[in-house]
Formats: sequence, C-alpha cells, structure tokens
Amino acid sequence: MKKIINQPQNVVEEMVAGMAKANPELLKKIEGFNILVRKEQKENKVALVSGGGSGHEPSHAGYVGSGMLDAAVAGPVFTSPNPSAVYRAIQEVSNPSGVLLIIKNYSGDVMNFKMAAEKAEKEGINCEYVVVNDDVAIKDSEDRRGIAGTVLVHKIAGAAAEQGKDLSAVKAVAEKAISAVNSKGVALSPCYSPSSGQPSFEVGPEEMEVGLGIHGEPGVEVQDLKTSREITEMLLEDILAEFKNDEQKFAVMINSLGATPLMELNILANDTYDYLKDQNCKLYKFYTGHYMTSMEMQGISLTLLAVDKEIEEFLSYPSDTLVKL
Amino acid sequence: MKKIINQPQNVVEEMVAGMAKANPELLKKIEGFNILVRKEQKENKVALVSGGGSGHEPSHAGYVGSGMLDAAVAGPVFTSPNPSAVYRAIQEVSNPSGVLLIIKNYSGDVMNFKMAAEKAEKEGINCEYVVVNDDVAIKDSEDRRGIAGTVLVHKIAGAAAEQGKDLSAVKAVAEKAISAVNSKGVALSPCYSPSSGQPSFEVGPEEMEVGLGIHGEPGVEVQDLKTSREITEMLLEDILAEFKNDEQKFAVMINSLGATPLMELNILANDTYDYLKDQNCKLYKFYTGHYMTSMEMQGISLTLLAVDKEIEEFLSYPSDTLVKL
Repeated sequence: MKKIINQPQNVVEEMVAGMAKANPELLKKIEGFNILVRKEQKENKVALVSGGGSGHEPSHAGYVGSGMLDAAVAGPVFTSPNPSAVYRAIQEVSNPSGVLLIIKNYSGDVMNFKMAAEKAEKEGINCEYVVVNDDVAIKDSEDRRGIAGTVLVHKIAGAAAEQGKDLSAVKAVAEKAISAVNSKGVALSPCYSPSSGQPSFEVGPEEMEVGLGIHGEPGVEVQDLKTSREITEMLLEDILAEFKNDEQKFAVMINSLGATPLMELNILANDTYDYLKDQNCKLYKFYTGHYMTSMEMQGISLTLLAVDKEIEEFLSYPSDTLVKL
Repeated sequence: MKKIINQPQNVVEEMVAGMAKANPELLKKIEGFNILVRKEQKENKVALVSGGGSGHEPSHAGYVGSGMLDAAVAGPVFTSPNPSAVYRAIQEVSNPSGVLLIIKNYSGDVMNFKMAAEKAEKEGINCEYVVVNDDVAIKDSEDRRGIAGTVLVHKIAGAAAEQGKDLSAVKAVAEKAISAVNSKGVALSPCYSPSSGQPSFEVGPEEMEVGLGIHGEPGVEVQDLKTSREITEMLLEDILAEFKNDEQKFAVMINSLGATPLMELNILANDTYDYLKDQNCKLYKFYTGHYMTSMEMQGISLTLLAVDKEIEEFLSYPSDTLVKL
C-alpha cells in the first residue's frame, strides 16, 4: 500500500505537528508529547480529555475546541498512549472543576487512561472517567468496543461541560449518551500498517468483513458483499435490537472508515432514511462523513443515538472544532 | 473495486436523494432533477449556481447554504449535467439580483453551463458566469482545469453575494479569486467507474501520477512515488511559480482525492507549513480535508490562494453548509 508519508516511524509526530501548525487559532501542541489541547482554555469548566491509538483521524484531535474536548492524546498507530502521556494531558487542562476522561473500550486504553486518572487523583486533581462501548457486533457488553459513537459522546458531554455543569453532572450526561448509542460496521478492505506496509487482514474480492473494529481487526464474520440497501438493513436491524421500545427518535451517524467516499455514504444515508422511516422511527439529525476512521480502510459504520429533549439540546449546542458537528 | 452501492446506474440519483433526506434543514431537492438548492432562499441576493459531473463529493452540494452556493447541479459520474438541468437550477434560484454560475474549466461543463446561461438571458434572467482554472499542471492557461481551488471561489463569491453585493461586483470578486488561486495534485491510485468497475488508469505499485485531473484522467507525467516532503516541495514549487512576487500571503487547501486519509493530509500540512515558512510566505489559514474528490482515488491536491485584506474578510465571513469552511 502506497502512502504519502515521510519516515513510517514519524507518522504520528508529524501528523500532530501538522495539525498544530495548520490550526494555531484552535489547537496547541504540548511540547514533547503528541497531545493537542484547546488553544483558549476556559477556566472553571470541567475539562474533557480523550484519545487513543492514532489512525482514527479526525478522532480525536478534530474534536478539540469549545463545546467538545479540551485535549486529545495521540498514541502510536492503533496503540494506546501510555499513562504518562494521558496524565500530561490531564495536568495541562485540569482546573478546579475537574477532568473527565472519555475512553474507548479497548483493554490498553482503559488500563492506561485509568492509571493516569489514578495518578491525577493522587496529585489532587478531581478526575473521573467514562468508557464508550457502542459496537454491537460484540455480544458481551463487557467486551463491546468503542467506535464512531464515541464522537457523539464527545459532542454531548462537551456541551454539558461548556454549559458549566459540574463534574458529576457531566459524567452522568456522558453515561446517558453512552447507554443511548449503538453502532456496527462493515469493511470491504483492510488498512495497512505504515511501518510494515502489511494489510491488517485479508478479505476476498467479493467479500466483506461484518462487525469490524477500528484497529484493523477483521470482522466477527465474513459475508458476500451486499448492496448498500442490504448492508443498511442488516446493520440497522442489529443496532435497533439494542434499543428499548420507547426509544424511537434517533440521531444517525454514517461514518467512513477512511477510503469509502461521500458518494457511497450518501447512498447509505438514502437507504438508512428509508429503512428507519419504514420502522416508524423519528429522525433528529444525520452526521455523514469521516468521523472515526481506520486509516485507508474501505468500509463504513452506522451509529444510532436515541435522543430525547435533553440530548437534542446538547447536540445542537454550538461547538468550534476542526470537524464541525 | 468494491463499492457500497445499489444499482450502478442509480448512484447519482440515490446520492442526491440521500443528501436531501439527511439534511432537510439545509437542502431541498428539485423534483425530477439531481439538483440541490438552499432550503431557505434569500430574496434579493445574487444567486450562485455550480455543479458538474458527480464523483467529486462533497463538491458541489456540500457547499450549498447561506454564505456559499444557492444550487448545485449533479451530472452523471464525471459527466457534465445537461443544459436543461443547469437551466432548471438557475430558474429555481433566480431573483431580481441575478445569477452567477461558477463553472470548472472542462469543455462539457463550459458548453452546457453557457448554453443554460444563454437560455436564462433569453428568459429575462440576469445571468453571468465565471470559469475556474486553478490546475497549474496544464501549462496553457486556456486549457487549465478547475479543481479544488473552485471550493475557495465558492466561499469567496458566496460571501460577497451574501453581503448583498450586486451581480457585477460578485462576478468581479469571483474573478479576482480565480486569478489568485493555483493548485496541483498527485494520484497514487485510479478511481473506478461504478458502472464498468474498471480503473480510470493503471499506475505501478511504486509510481504516482503527477498533475492529475479529477475525472479519472491520468497525470501529465508518471514519477516514482516520493515522500510527503518531496511531493510537497515539487507541487509547491510549481504552484508558487504562478504567483507574482508581491503575493506572499496564502490560504492553503490540502485536499484528499478520496481515499487518502487525514493522517496523510496532516503530514502534508506539516511539510507544507515548513516549506512555505522557508520561502518566507505568510499563512492565513489551512483547509485540510475532503473538498474535491475523485470517488475513491488515492492522492491529494495542494492549493494556494493569495489573500489580501478583502479576500480574508470574505474567507472569514460566516457560511452554513454541510462542509464548513
């Protein structure tokens, strides 16, 4: 796989440096770390920190800014940042209102972010965390991974924090969002490690991986490639099964895993709209684009977020970040 | 090439329908046409119409909204919409302030949009047009194609129109932007026709096409694949050569042709920043993302726009569109 890079071992550092240089009005890099923080820190607001392995851009630095995250920690490609990096981010943005970490449910991320939170608590920083696990491809909810739904948790918790809610309230809002969001995806191609150049898995020319993660894992099953309409129905059926009957109004995220272009995302949007209307669902808002990727993987994930009046108000609260939500 | 679609012959229609259904607060589809218009038409404002072949998403419907375009006409994949479709868009958004067409310089687009403009004039609609030709890969300026720089022309002319300038003033602003914008790109892979499934060209595993168009044309030359830094320098040297010496402050667009992910775009942003600073250029703003694509083509284009105080004011004027600029 060809990539436009310099030295493979420097991809994360150069990417983070590029984001900081290109967006000085919005982002500030912490010297010596692959961490981007909000340029204008707001005092006395719960600070939100997220991050994880790189390769999911625009996650998470694309969501740093007013109304969303205060800091994004970028680990090596598909590898959790270490606890000291996460702690450095916490330290940078901490203020008397405290800090909330938004962690995607992967063992490395959970372990390292929790260690950083414990260190922060020891240092007198009021630090809590939540774990996002929106991927319904995994049946055991303990093991459900955090995928594109994480971005909606950033948006909702970010709005609550920006409005001045206290740490326990922001955490409760984030947990409400987490319990209301479910996702599932398909991959048509693997992604490729910048260092080895190797594909993350093999998939046949007429096949797709169903229920993939975002770290180059294969799906939980392989199926023949289907049409947009068939893929939409298959994914939405599994996703809708996770909601209670009284949750019938949704925000929808149609996310490219990297290489799948907007033409296909919008065809999926058409099929998603038609399917959900057939199911008598109400639709609040669509988010269609590149939100949580696996480098140049071909594929998509669908996410539904059950919305009520409170969540709608958070989703419509203004934010100013590289990727607008 | 695998794609997430239904019937290949319906990709444009389903995509346009999907955009309209997913974004009812912003976009309205004209019945019977693949045209998206701004939901809330503003009276007594020069109306801006753009479009062209499909496959360049988010161009152009992603730029329909306040402060940018009033209508986007989507032709078949990589094929100009016919004059009657363009005329239908003009008719829909025309108002006493007149209509300006923003055309990318391809013979089919220029011919069909001009025919539509002539028909509009005959019907008593005050209709002018400008032609964007930012691609410096083509040396003869008559033949220079319109590529990603077109999006900045939408933004600048859109701001001028939204501010209430008259048709001749908006046209003059658009022409000023066109004369101030230059682009060039490289492709690492072809894109694939939805109907035939065939690649638009062949390029070796260690090669890249330099100076490509956005309709699946091969580049003007083939080179060995280079690093991000080398590609940046090569492209910027050619682009900078097009500017006068007194033009030393630039807005920069780093555009994915489809499959190239944000990780690589931001590495390019890092190299672009460093190179332009070495050349003593001032930088106004970076736009990094998917703006003018060729479906799932791997590759990028770089665009520089010389800015003065007037252009900066237009670029910073608020707009509300699917893709935020």
